[in-house]
Amino acid sequence: MSLFDANRTSVFCNLRFMKNIFVIGAGRSATTLIGYFLEHAEEQDWHLTVGDISAELCEKKISGHPRGRAIAFDVFNAAQRKEEISKADIIVSMLPASMHVEVAKECVELGKHLTTASYISKEMKALNDAAQAKGLTLLNETGLDPGIDHLSAMKLIDEIRNDGGEIKHFESFTGGLVAPESDDNPWHYKFTWNPRNVVLASQGGAVKFIHNGKHKYIPYHRVFRRTEYITIEGQGEFEGYANRDSLSYVEVYGLHDVKTLYRGTLRKPGFSRSWDVFVQLGMTDDSYVMEGSETMTNRDFVNSFLPFSLRDNVELKLRAMLKLDQDDRLMQKLQWLGIFDKVVIGLKNATPAQMLQHILEQKWSMRPDDKDMIVMWHKVGFVKNGKKFVTESSMVVKGDDQENTAMSKTVGYTLAIATRMILENRITERGVLLPLSKGVYEPVLEELKKNGIAFNEKTYQVEEFTT
Amino acid sequence: MSLFDANRTSVFCNLRFMKNIFVIGAGRSATTLIGYFLEHAEEQDWHLTVGDISAELCEKKISGHPRGRAIAFDVFNAAQRKEEISKADIIVSMLPASMHVEVAKECVELGKHLTTASYISKEMKALNDAAQAKGLTLLNETGLDPGIDHLSAMKLIDEIRNDGGEIKHFESFTGGLVAPESDDNPWHYKFTWNPRNVVLASQGGAVKFIHNGKHKYIPYHRVFRRTEYITIEGQGEFEGYANRDSLSYVEVYGLHDVKTLYRGTLRKPGFSRSWDVFVQLGMTDDSYVMEGSETMTNRDFVNSFLPFSLRDNVELKLRAMLKLDQDDRLMQKLQWLGIFDKVVIGLKNATPAQMLQHILEQKWSMRPDDKDMIVMWHKVGFVKNGKKFVTESSMVVKGDDQENTAMSKTVGYTLAIATRMILENRITERGVLLPLSKGVYEPVLEELKKNGIAFNEKTYQVEEFTT
Repeated sequence: MSLFDANRTSVFCNLRFMKNIFVIGAGRSATTLIGYFLEHAEEQDWHLTVGDISAELCEKKISGHPRGRAIAFDVFNAAQRKEEISKADIIVSMLPASMHVEVAKECVELGKHLTTASYISKEMKALNDAAQAKGLTLLNETGLDPGIDHLSAMKLIDEIRNDGGEIKHFESFTGGLVAPESDDNPWHYKFTWNPRNVVLASQGGAVKFIHNGKHKYIPYHRVFRRTEYITIEGQGEFEGYANRDSLSYVEVYGLHDVKTLYRGTLRKPGFSRSWDVFVQLGMTDDSYVMEGSETMTNRDFVNSFLPFSLRDNVELKLRAMLKLDQDDRLMQKLQWLGIFDKVVIGLKNATPAQMLQHILEQKWSMRPDDKDMIVMWHKVGFVKNGKKFVTESSMVVKGDDQENTAMSKTVGYTLAIATRMILENRITERGVLLPLSKGVYEPVLEELKKNGIAFNEKTYQVEEFTT
Repeated sequence: MSLFDANRTSVFCNLRFMKNIFVIGAGRSATTLIGYFLEHAEEQDWHLTVGDISAELCEKKISGHPRGRAIAFDVFNAAQRKEEISKADIIVSMLPASMHVEVAKECVELGKHLTTASYISKEMKALNDAAQAKGLTLLNETGLDPGIDHLSAMKLIDEIRNDGGEIKHFESFTGGLVAPESDDNPWHYKFTWNPRNVVLASQGGAVKFIHNGKHKYIPYHRVFRRTEYITIEGQGEFEGYANRDSLSYVEVYGLHDVKTLYRGTLRKPGFSRSWDVFVQLGMTDDSYVMEGSETMTNRDFVNSFLPFSLRDNVELKLRAMLKLDQDDRLMQKLQWLGIFDKVVIGLKNATPAQMLQHILEQKWSMRPDDKDMIVMWHKVGFVKNGKKFVTESSMVVKGDDQENTAMSKTVGYTLAIATRMILENRITERGVLLPLSKGVYEPVLEELKKNGIAFNEKTYQVEEFTT
């Protein structure tokens, strides 16, 4: 074997101090991430490449920083993919979840670490053995949700167990909301993230969870009427509706003895009951195209889900169907959205869900000076010395502006910090990983705290975990 | 070409008077069908072969008739399929809908006519050109529903048009019910046909129909609360809920100018509101397996769809969720079904729909002396000389016993008569057909009348077709 063969060159390269980071995807959620890398580039001797279909977007995010390089990058261009990944020491993929695997395979091939903020797919999981064999870390689910939820939940769980507590009850809720200072509408909600995901939330199968030792099921059309109220000190009241799959967290968090396991989404109180109107009418259905959608007004759209009547108007028919009193404030919320207005929606061959999203976007879009807010809340019930205790842990993060949103900050800092820890050899686990071990969550949570992302905890004794 | 080659032999065989009929499938619905063929075998010089996986079943249905032959028949045995089909002049397939196409392909190959009572599949439709080229009739949808609904609807539509009427409104409902003399439960319903189809009714996508010129959509979870009341003279009141797809009947019946098009299913009043309890709770879901289904009681099953409570019992939680008054008779219907009982269901890895079906079968099964009843009702609105008229047409057929049920009679007579008409060259249309033309529906309806299956009609003037 020659001193200059490929393997030796690679070993030699890894020994140098300077590190190359390659971020793929420069969209809305990458602002804080890229900012973090550039801010620390000089002190850490990092060089950052940002690649996106739009080179312009990359240039905007880098804004002339001497250690940044913007490139037009197409993940499906195999030659370019190979070339750019081979130049880097670690790859951060902010691509849509389904595209990570192209990058991941190349990383394993070329011997590079990878981080993502997305759920682990089957294809990603299949790379575990190959990644371990090559000594690589492919760290996933390291953003907000999934991400900070894992880090903070595992920290709580480990601490309680190390202190002799036996965990019996676990609830976890996260919500992407509008900050109170920008909350100026009767729904107390705006689209701070992908509107389509909000419209389709909880669809695709029954909700499954465990409550006091029993498996419970909620069909989609009941999800928004089975909510829970949660009070967070200094932040007021919230309501939570169930996420589809809570059961898989028995395995993920090792909660095999838990009697209650429930994960959900947070909104301001009253949201779910109002949203349920759309669910009840069938407006969130994305499975068929509406006849003549292009010429339909908001009012026509609503009327297509209501019975025909020669006498009664749309408002009255809706109230009758949903048994709403004439003075129910829900009607004002619907009127405020303009769903009864005679304005043409103008979408061709649209599904009900697409029509509804269009109507909502007219009213729920963020204004340039609006700020978003992320709220996360865990409730862990445990038995210690024969007594029952509950620990509540909550995190509230507000956005700075429309660039450095709370969503961009929570996703970006978490992913950037984890990436840094791999580069610094502070994360040494190898294979396809979730951020569940103490070696990962402890340093990342510590560093997040320095960037203003922290949890408040309180523990108190209870009679029962549920009522 | 020799006088004895295959084609000439075949022509010679077709000239003989004696005809061979091959019925595939000897299940519950084939009783009347087989009975009709045997009853007329001597006079028509028919020979009947009945084939089923169970030869015993065939023998039972033929019960020693000298012109009947019972065989064990496996449609997936290619050699046997070829042999038996080649011996027959016409094949009647009573197989499950998905298996017809194996038979149909063989029929086209061997030059045989075919009749079925099932909806035309894509694969069946694709055989049209080949069937026409060979001068064959592959007649489908010729049972009850589909079947008598087509025949009677097309007769009405043609008559009204020939009389100068312009059709604006079309509704059609069919129900398989228990006969009044056997109606001894608070639901006024028993399983007279496949229970699984009843439990899954209206699932699989939104209901779509046209009402007063507008397309209307109903999500599954609202279908059983959007019912219509129908009074049939001498038979009392019924209620109808919407079938999934009414829109395709614009094409099938040529109703391009119709303002209202609605097809549905008939039940006795009150059924749908009560059934809706199961829909609302999520008990009709067939998409997932319930954890620990094997050891669940009826009561556990219900409770798995209700919120946990330390204090409240299952009945109270159900009432609270569905907003039922304490004296709502619906609760008595649920209690009568035993859904709150502590009896183990005992199904392993069962879906909610399977669990529900099992509970219902304990109470809704037909007793040996119970009779079923088929009710069909059409309402056709038309304009003639500037005036609006409605024709209502209804059919009621009761079963004789548990063998010659109304279902077996309506399906069997229709299919047998149509088969006979093909043998007698009274149906001369060729290709893959529905029974929509006058040449088909007129002689079949005439013959059905002789067997006690007839429609009552009344026509009256109206102000509006809908209210």
